[in-house]
Amino acid sequence: MEKRSAPLRQTLLIRCPDKPGLIHGITGLLLETGCNIVSNHEFVDPVDSIFFMRTEFFGHPENTDHLNRIKALLPQDAEIKVHAEKRQKVILFATRESHCLGDLLLRHRSKELDIDIPCVISNHKELQSLVEDFHLPFQFIDHEGLSREEHEGKILNFLQTIPFDFIVLAKYMRILSENFVSQFPERIVNIHHSFLPAFVGASPYKQAYERGVKLIGATAHFVTSSLDEGPILAQDVIPVDHSFTKDKLVLNGRDIEKVVLARAIRFVLEHRVIVWKNKTVIFK
Amino acid sequence: MEKRSAPLRQTLLIRCPDKPGLIHGITGLLLETGCNIVSNHEFVDPVDSIFFMRTEFFGHPENTDHLNRIKALLPQDAEIKVHAEKRQKVILFATRESHCLGDLLLRHRSKELDIDIPCVISNHKELQSLVEDFHLPFQFIDHEGLSREEHEGKILNFLQTIPFDFIVLAKYMRILSENFVSQFPERIVNIHHSFLPAFVGASPYKQAYERGVKLIGATAHFVTSSLDEGPILAQDVIPVDHSFTKDKLVLNGRDIEKVVLARAIRFVLEHRVIVWKNKTVIFK
Amino acid sequence: MEKRSAPLRQTLLIRCPDKPGLIHGITGLLLETGCNIVSNHEFVDPVDSIFFMRTEFFGHPENTDHLNRIKALLPQDAEIKVHAEKRQKVILFATRESHCLGDLLLRHRSKELDIDIPCVISNHKELQSLVEDFHLPFQFIDHEGLSREEHEGKILNFLQTIPFDFIVLAKYMRILSENFVSQFPERIVNIHHSFLPAFVGASPYKQAYERGVKLIGATAHFVTSSLDEGPILAQDVIPVDHSFTKDKLVLNGRDIEKVVLARAIRFVLEHRVIVWKNKTVIFK
Amino acid sequence: MEKRSAPLRQTLLIRCPDKPGLIHGITGLLLETGCNIVSNHEFVDPVDSIFFMRTEFFGHPENTDHLNRIKALLPQDAEIKVHAEKRQKVILFATRESHCLGDLLLRHRSKELDIDIPCVISNHKELQSLVEDFHLPFQFIDHEGLSREEHEGKILNFLQTIPFDFIVLAKYMRILSENFVSQFPERIVNIHHSFLPAFVGASPYKQAYERGVKLIGATAHFVTSSLDEGPILAQDVIPVDHSFTKDKLVLNGRDIEKVVLARAIRFVLEHRVIVWKNKTVIFK
Repeated sequence: MEKRSAPLRQTLLIRCPDKPGLIHGITGLLLETGCNIVSNHEFVDPVDSIFFMRTEFFGHPENTDHLNRIKALLPQDAEIKVHAEKRQKVILFATRESHCLGDLLLRHRSKELDIDIPCVISNHKELQSLVEDFHLPFQFIDHEGLSREEHEGKILNFLQTIPFDFIVLAKYMRILSENFVSQFPERIVNIHHSFLPAFVGASPYKQAYERGVKLIGATAHFVTSSLDEGPILAQDVIPVDHSFTKDKLVLNGRDIEKVVLARAIRFVLEHRVIVWKNKTVIFK
Repeated sequence: MEKRSAPLRQTLLIRCPDKPGLIHGITGLLLETGCNIVSNHEFVDPVDSIFFMRTEFFGHPENTDHLNRIKALLPQDAEIKVHAEKRQKVILFATRESHCLGDLLLRHRSKELDIDIPCVISNHKELQSLVEDFHLPFQFIDHEGLSREEHEGKILNFLQTIPFDFIVLAKYMRILSENFVSQFPERIVNIHHSFLPAFVGASPYKQAYERGVKLIGATAHFVTSSLDEGPILAQDVIPVDHSFTKDKLVLNGRDIEKVVLARAIRFVLEHRVIVWKNKTVIFK
Repeated sequence: MEKRSAPLRQTLLIRCPDKPGLIHGITGLLLETGCNIVSNHEFVDPVDSIFFMRTEFFGHPENTDHLNRIKALLPQDAEIKVHAEKRQKVILFATRESHCLGDLLLRHRSKELDIDIPCVISNHKELQSLVEDFHLPFQFIDHEGLSREEHEGKILNFLQTIPFDFIVLAKYMRILSENFVSQFPERIVNIHHSFLPAFVGASPYKQAYERGVKLIGATAHFVTSSLDEGPILAQDVIPVDHSFTKDKLVLNGRDIEKVVLARAIRFVLEHRVIVWKNKTVIFK
Repeated sequence: MEKRSAPLRQTLLIRCPDKPGLIHGITGLLLETGCNIVSNHEFVDPVDSIFFMRTEFFGHPENTDHLNRIKALLPQDAEIKVHAEKRQKVILFATRESHCLGDLLLRHRSKELDIDIPCVISNHKELQSLVEDFHLPFQFIDHEGLSREEHEGKILNFLQTIPFDFIVLAKYMRILSENFVSQFPERIVNIHHSFLPAFVGASPYKQAYERGVKLIGATAHFVTSSLDEGPILAQDVIPVDHSFTKDKLVLNGRDIEKVVLARAIRFVLEHRVIVWKNKTVIFK
């Protein structure tokens, strides 16, 4: 008699053109193959008739029969992903500012963020002692005197030595090239310090100060080759007024930046996000 | 013996380069000339060293001596305005949507907004019955077959027959020309259905839908000759998600539009706003 | 051959103890009986293992076979409701304040709120002209000189003459007795002018002023026999500070009251709410 | 010729019954005595006619003449305080949860919070390594086997060995006695994990879960002898829904707790707060 491993929590994400009977069919196949559905969410985009589904279930990991049968059930152009529960590896990139990085290190330390952080990569040394005080490896990869291509080449070489699932740009203040980004689709999360699409690019707080807005914001998004134009994962704002100098905007903005980034990371790590047409469907 | 009128509530607004002793000097002159200060707020812009002040006081309206003496006290390039309390006249412009207009009519009816509305002007007839049910004059000024210049000419002719203090564009869906706008500086308030500067121009909800933002907003601003770029008076946002179609964004956005517009109007009517460098200082 | 009516949009709401296969079973029965599922949402309460489901589908109204078969499928203690799409009748109660009532009348007039309002009932005459200017019947039911029982008796007599689905208390400032409330379970929506459970009962703005809170709120809830303790449908808050007098709290609070009430009414009218343990599951 | 020290930034806080000419008089005395006013804010409570003022100025620290003259100018019952700029000493109390403590340690490390932290006191050892990794002293003061009086006696003895300005309870989960609290009026800041006055006392998230609220909040306040009833310094909320278990409320609530606490601490450290009638006037 075959020995089988214990059932594992798995997350199924499906995106395909809608047609009648999809939920019934998919849940039926999961039931038939002995999977125990824990939660199930669907969304049908009413404009383009696209079906999105996220299902958490317990199933035997070696049993992949149901997946093939689900694939057979779905229309063409379906995207289907299954993520078995595992501790995920997230590499953090940072530059000089500590508020987002430190916040993530704290969440990691308290196990609120139940991940591995194989290392923190930075093009500056300012944050080294912080990272090392959290007993994590810090990798300094200097960009001085290097072209963007050369600098990214060094980072890519380094990344090949470490398995990881996601990269989080925790205030990494360099623009990543299309070449770099395209190697990690939907695997790089960035925090931008404005309410996108307002104030794209450099110095958003300066731009906000000059425009005289009455709210400032932060946006977490997947990184694509278009600067600050990737699919948005989370956004938030706080009220400000005329008495806020640029420095006071920066000071107050930090608190939303770190909270919005952490919220976005949680969505990504829990496999709650399906991207489509440069937008996100997020099953909360 | 001279007969004097009763003291009147007045609002003094000052903007000038900062120098030591301004508050002391100004309050001193008000006290000396028998004015009774009710409230007093100052703000000094730390970047450009500009002094802003708003003072409410009771004084005899015929007594303008203190004003001349305050002027003498201030540096050159000072802007000084005094508004004696009076019931203000506000003309509303609208097109087809009723949520902002109706909300203002309700606030007027309940006396929350203690103003006169000499009339509502529209380039369409849809809102005529609503306005007339509130027992207010409705002026239809058709734009069909007219150039922008001709249409605005008709509006300007009409406006010359009615005294008014402010114009509120309560979802008036036509762009006003520079010629029109320049005749009423800081006297036209508009509501734009986005969190400016995101989604300037036409169809902001469509733009927001396509960008996949997680918050939508509304912005009330003074109208200047640059479309959607006038000084911002008030802004607010509400959370949305992937399940919001464009129509649902419109539906939910209405509730912030009307609330933000009413908030901005209150600031303007209570003389709480000083404009400078295309931004607003608002004394709340 | 039988003549059949056109398929009608219907909403199915289910609440029952959870067990494996419910979604599969229910969607299967709907498919089998020719219903076309438009949207489907489920929620399983992880603490008590209760299954909640809301399904919108098109089906022939005379076909109730699927309902009986769904019932047979569900565990005992299941609650199942089907609402065929129809224009709903909502009676509004008000007293003297016009902001919530007027807001609802405007939404009704613009068809944003696509309901019938058979009449507005009030224990005062202040709002009569407003209601009549919206071309709706106003029913004055005086409470002067009457006991609560007698006054409610008159209201109940009047209600028996008018079919209606829901009652909305749009700032109706009298407490309804247990006898009254128990006749319309989950059919009376109230707006309370505080962030419940803070400031239960009379004068919440006065209580908020005296406590010195930095936010004020509004809560819409189903009315039960316990004052201000019914299941919460919607809540929101706005920031305030020490400069807000009680009157300014009232003024600013109105804007959240009316928006929160309208949001709650939309949930109720669209059959998005399932009550359980004095709480609401709301499928947005 | 006398040697004088350099002028120092100082903050003047005044609270007294209102009378005409106060601002003029106070600013005049500051000018006369060579102080350079940087910013000036006043507020007059319109209900009780109380005058509140906060003035930042540069003046020679040995010059206290102006203070005596200001005192002479004010009505009886005036409270007047001057705080010369200095690096303040803040002792942190914590128990087991790290999110508020860690957040403050990070802000301290990055110099966003420009204070001294002489030590962190805790009745548990869980947070010792975190504090020590930030290179700060950790003082474990066990409460096991001690009465509240005995435990506080030990803390008080320890506090006598360390000069400090404020105590911050960063999730310190023990109730402080009236005896303890009364020794540090307006010097202890606490964070309570609810939107007070909702959910006073133990387990506010459990209470929020059971009541089914649609927002959860956090409140920072000065500690007085009445549990959770001290003057409120800052509050904020985030939206939640039926899908939030108690644990998810806790998880999400942490992000507002730490941000609200930090905001309150900033107000206190910058001498922006005047307490009156168990409420706070906060000059932002």
